[in-house]
Amino acid sequence: MVQQTKSAPQTSQGLPPAPAPADPKQSLAEERQNPSFPVRELTTFIDNGPAAAEYKERVMFELERDPLWRMDNSPDLSLAQIRERTMAKVANLVHHLQTEPLDLFWQRMAVISVVDPAFWTRFGVHFGLFFGAIQGQATAEQLGYWMDKGAFTLNGLVGCFAMTELGHGSNVAGLETTATFDEETDEFVIHTPTITATKWWIGGAAHSANYSAVYAQLIVKGKRYGAKTFVVPLRDTATYKLLPGVTIGDIGKKMGRDGIDNGWIQFTYVRIPRFNMLMKHTKVSRAGDVQEPALAQLAYGALIQGRVSMVADSANMSKKALMVAIRYAAIRRQFAAVPGQLETKLLDYPIHQYRLLPLLAQTYALNFTGMEMTRVYHALMRQINGAKDGQDLTGILEGLKETHATAAGLKAFGTWNCLNTIEQCRQSLGGHGYSAYTGLSGMYTDFAVQCTWEGDNTILTLQCGRYLVSTLLEHRQSGKPLAQNVAYLARALQPVQPCPARTEADLLRTEVIREAWGAVAASAVARATARFEKALQAATSGGKKVTKDEAYEQCATLRLHAARLHCYGYLVARFADAIPRAPASVQPILTRLCLLYGTYAIQENKGEFLQSGFFNVDQIATLHDAMSTLLTQVRQDAVSLVDAFNYSDYIVNSPLGRYDGNIYEAYFNLVRANNPNHNDIPYFDKIIKPLHNRSLESEEVPQLDF
Amino acid sequence: MVQQTKSAPQTSQGLPPAPAPADPKQSLAEERQNPSFPVRELTTFIDNGPAAAEYKERVMFELERDPLWRMDNSPDLSLAQIRERTMAKVANLVHHLQTEPLDLFWQRMAVISVVDPAFWTRFGVHFGLFFGAIQGQATAEQLGYWMDKGAFTLNGLVGCFAMTELGHGSNVAGLETTATFDEETDEFVIHTPTITATKWWIGGAAHSANYSAVYAQLIVKGKRYGAKTFVVPLRDTATYKLLPGVTIGDIGKKMGRDGIDNGWIQFTYVRIPRFNMLMKHTKVSRAGDVQEPALAQLAYGALIQGRVSMVADSANMSKKALMVAIRYAAIRRQFAAVPGQLETKLLDYPIHQYRLLPLLAQTYALNFTGMEMTRVYHALMRQINGAKDGQDLTGILEGLKETHATAAGLKAFGTWNCLNTIEQCRQSLGGHGYSAYTGLSGMYTDFAVQCTWEGDNTILTLQCGRYLVSTLLEHRQSGKPLAQNVAYLARALQPVQPCPARTEADLLRTEVIREAWGAVAASAVARATARFEKALQAATSGGKKVTKDEAYEQCATLRLHAARLHCYGYLVARFADAIPRAPASVQPILTRLCLLYGTYAIQENKGEFLQSGFFNVDQIATLHDAMSTLLTQVRQDAVSLVDAFNYSDYIVNSPLGRYDGNIYEAYFNLVRANNPNHNDIPYFDKIIKPLHNRSLESEEVPQLDF
Repeated sequence: MVQQTKSAPQTSQGLPPAPAPADPKQSLAEERQNPSFPVRELTTFIDNGPAAAEYKERVMFELERDPLWRMDNSPDLSLAQIRERTMAKVANLVHHLQTEPLDLFWQRMAVISVVDPAFWTRFGVHFGLFFGAIQGQATAEQLGYWMDKGAFTLNGLVGCFAMTELGHGSNVAGLETTATFDEETDEFVIHTPTITATKWWIGGAAHSANYSAVYAQLIVKGKRYGAKTFVVPLRDTATYKLLPGVTIGDIGKKMGRDGIDNGWIQFTYVRIPRFNMLMKHTKVSRAGDVQEPALAQLAYGALIQGRVSMVADSANMSKKALMVAIRYAAIRRQFAAVPGQLETKLLDYPIHQYRLLPLLAQTYALNFTGMEMTRVYHALMRQINGAKDGQDLTGILEGLKETHATAAGLKAFGTWNCLNTIEQCRQSLGGHGYSAYTGLSGMYTDFAVQCTWEGDNTILTLQCGRYLVSTLLEHRQSGKPLAQNVAYLARALQPVQPCPARTEADLLRTEVIREAWGAVAASAVARATARFEKALQAATSGGKKVTKDEAYEQCATLRLHAARLHCYGYLVARFADAIPRAPASVQPILTRLCLLYGTYAIQENKGEFLQSGFFNVDQIATLHDAMSTLLTQVRQDAVSLVDAFNYSDYIVNSPLGRYDGNIYEAYFNLVRANNPNHNDIPYFDKIIKPLHNRSLESEEVPQLDF
Repeated sequence: MVQQTKSAPQTSQGLPPAPAPADPKQSLAEERQNPSFPVRELTTFIDNGPAAAEYKERVMFELERDPLWRMDNSPDLSLAQIRERTMAKVANLVHHLQTEPLDLFWQRMAVISVVDPAFWTRFGVHFGLFFGAIQGQATAEQLGYWMDKGAFTLNGLVGCFAMTELGHGSNVAGLETTATFDEETDEFVIHTPTITATKWWIGGAAHSANYSAVYAQLIVKGKRYGAKTFVVPLRDTATYKLLPGVTIGDIGKKMGRDGIDNGWIQFTYVRIPRFNMLMKHTKVSRAGDVQEPALAQLAYGALIQGRVSMVADSANMSKKALMVAIRYAAIRRQFAAVPGQLETKLLDYPIHQYRLLPLLAQTYALNFTGMEMTRVYHALMRQINGAKDGQDLTGILEGLKETHATAAGLKAFGTWNCLNTIEQCRQSLGGHGYSAYTGLSGMYTDFAVQCTWEGDNTILTLQCGRYLVSTLLEHRQSGKPLAQNVAYLARALQPVQPCPARTEADLLRTEVIREAWGAVAASAVARATARFEKALQAATSGGKKVTKDEAYEQCATLRLHAARLHCYGYLVARFADAIPRAPASVQPILTRLCLLYGTYAIQENKGEFLQSGFFNVDQIATLHDAMSTLLTQVRQDAVSLVDAFNYSDYIVNSPLGRYDGNIYEAYFNLVRANNPNHNDIPYFDKIIKPLHNRSLESEEVPQLDF
């Protein structure tokens, strides 16, 4: 390639001298000199009060000092080592479960979920899933029995939750495992009839569990009654040898969360007593009569809890990711504005602000959303638990339906956005984001599963969308009142009123932004509903009527969009609601963040706003400029805003996210400590030396002379 | 929780009998019964002719039979095992490099990059980077010397490319490593002055390399001349012991690509002869005079090559991911439309079509884009290499500038979209996407680095945007003619002409879609340009003029958007260009795919189209309906369209993507084979047994009686 110049080379006079390198610690410290708000007051507000903030700090301190909880060497542990260490943590944590009030214990678990998601899963499989199934589905007598066996103390009983099968996930009704009642012996026979019926992904099955809660098709007298839950022993408690008829294997390597021992299970005609079917709802009598409850919906409560906690978890994991990315961006420098001067901090580039600060604002929004969802969930559970015999449950059921739909949508919205935040933060570290020691890559691979389990995100978003469409239809057709969180749907019955605000000052108000989100979500729900009705009216080519379910499938894309916009609006509204409850000293910064999130999200979805007619192109352009200004303002407080998240260096677990800013030294030392065998090339003699010393003969081709 | 019904339980009559399970092989086979096009003709077209398709098949066959290239057990290999196996592959592939014509060898490498990205990197570090640096920057005499040393045959010389430092990535000018000329001894002294100057991420440094091409600040007689390239020996070739003054460590675990041995290097006053500075461009004489070339831009050629190949690689990796996701979706069933009937295939759900099929269309678009970019690049290089002394290079330089900008934008666009495609495909597998054995999780972690190396994607996209803004300005200010790929920018000088088409039939034509993309990209570039000019005119608060660079930073967000839209339009245009060159038999399906990609991308960016005024809300709605119809049509050919990608089961390397559809059995067997120690719980006695048998005393709190 001719890369040579054609003109004569020139004798060079050299460049100006290089500036002295910046001190990383100083670069970070200077960011904390003039926060526009008192950081501690913001912390206690977002941590739900001073007591909770202090308890969180105590837990962080305890974990940091316990060698069992050391995390900075985890990238180099083998699967076997990780599994063992995680089980040791389970044994360690049981102490707190039994000595600490349950609300504090859950606060402890919320910290731990950010430290070690695989552990959190391993512990949660027993307590959330197995024990949760027993609590929710056992009769009082059965619950007592399993408690005596050690279901709460893990003294004799570690359980797993055997629902999913190799060929069956989201559709529980399609499970193939059978539980056939044998009237002669008063037993159920649990059986895996095909390879696709193999219980799959069962957390705890490979190593930890000696019992399982198995979902299987109940068959009595040759008739199927749908999937019910059965407690099936897997292993001898004294030896952990598999019981007859039980085959278990290890699911092996996963994208992440290797600390949890997922396994597969096949049952070959395993007999259990009738007592082991959980019979709070459906009952099978000694004679084989099957009784089913009239109202099944109330069991949704259990689903909601998991999803609500995942919204909070999404906020917390996003905090951790942003603490690394924003502190790093305040230290890392790249390109000098003037040759010979100090390079510019990444955080001073408008594009870097645009990459990270809206995610920061979103994380605050998710935090307040998680707090509010938790409050709503507990209030609802109190209502349900306080219901008296014979009371009309219609109101409670409506609330449950709305909360169930919103929790489904927000679980999907929160986990997708958290995964995106982690990845954006990872990419913002440049090459260092690809190292296992800077934390973000492991966060991504650990977190990714959250988009799938406890309800696949796409299916959950569609569920939320279906609720929105059916709610709008019922409201329109029969005037059924709208729950508070979907009150905006009333707008869908009227033509869109374009926003009258024109100037930046008029547009940039939380009321306006909030109203805009209501208007656009209503418009999207209306569009999905129109598509649904059109599909319902059309006959298929064969002349057959389209069913309601088919019509819902036809409008699925629009339903998905509508639910997404509903969730955006929900976050904006929860953020705006939180501001007046905050101390006055932090209200201005929270307002800026709320507006930043709202305007950013409007830009990301400007097509919807223009399509709805609520904003015109001039208003969109004005809001874009307003967003740019907000980015510049929030940038000034960026480091203080992540400091306020109140996670110690131990929790952040990344040398690039250190509080003191000494990132390069810490990173270098960590890489060196985890890779001590510097000059050991085990395959030098076997592969490299022969490569260098090979004869090239075999690579030469002898030539004929004709 | 009251989950119990309040009305009396009812005796149930049971459900209809379950249908017989579907045969996975049959489910897939039926998809191939009526393709709307001849699959082999499409394959030879996208594989660049029958000869190339057959050569690809031969390479796949060779790899599949060679035990060294076995890939299905890679998830369970340790870092040490992966490193060794990868080096053995290097030694193995050298044979082909030396016996095979280079164009065939690159076709071989294109297949291998899809099989084992870590290997591809390890091999590429020597041939692409180290040898590339020598080829591009050495004088003829120097090149001959290093060839004799084994730079091409690896017989005595394996090189690495030591550019990046711990504290310095994208900004080569900011590197800290120094190369100080010692006039007395006619040597350079290579030195790492600080911890941030440590060479970092250097592929091959930890194990493979005995030489390095080091970027260091040239200092002669106390003056700096910027970063130049020096060949520095690292290890004794006979023993691979480190040479004096060289300290090397292992970078250790990464998110992926563990087969490549990235390392860090510190030099402590290491002396090399003056000959070891690569002096094709800048020259240092014996006396210490420094001559620099007048025109440096022509060296961009080397950057373009890597980026162009990453566009093709993005297409190929997307193909692999989609082969898994689409075949799985044609087999996996979920929820029955009618109780008691067979469940519905995922691929029959409109939402699943919407998730996957636009990505399929995009992959075809990327494929044609990669082919065209490769052609353009080679044509340009021929022009440059054929340039005669004294010839006016202005035309060539303009072409180089445009290709450089487009390649930068497309590298970013292609790798970001490929990473997204992999992740969407992974999530579409439900829980199975989280297994290490189904392939997609490893593809994600291996591919993720492509968004960062060879130019960080954000920076590259901004570069492309800067080219677009400056091109529009030059054209407007001085009437400078526009290169063909940016001819659409002429539209930016006129008011937008709204699209006159109204009906679906009029809108859904490749010419209209293509024109729409030109219009919207022109409008976005115009908006970024206006912002740039506004910034340039404004004085800062201190009254200081804003520099051009500062003004470019101010419009960075709009510049990023403009470049993204430019890339979308480029893909649509290259796809449309390819159709008339295809055999008539495959033109209809390619047209449908091209329209699907175009309309999908319009929906994803509808805000831009509405903002530009080219489409109104009715046209957007019509195009949305048209997209839905296209999804239904393309769904009929979906399996044949991934079959046409012509990758064997060995390459796809996922039990869920098997050609024969026998996915569940293969997946089950693979998991079992990789995790043979089923019931070995190594820590049972140590942790689990004591947990079950512990005394609960310590968890009891003794009570005082007052």
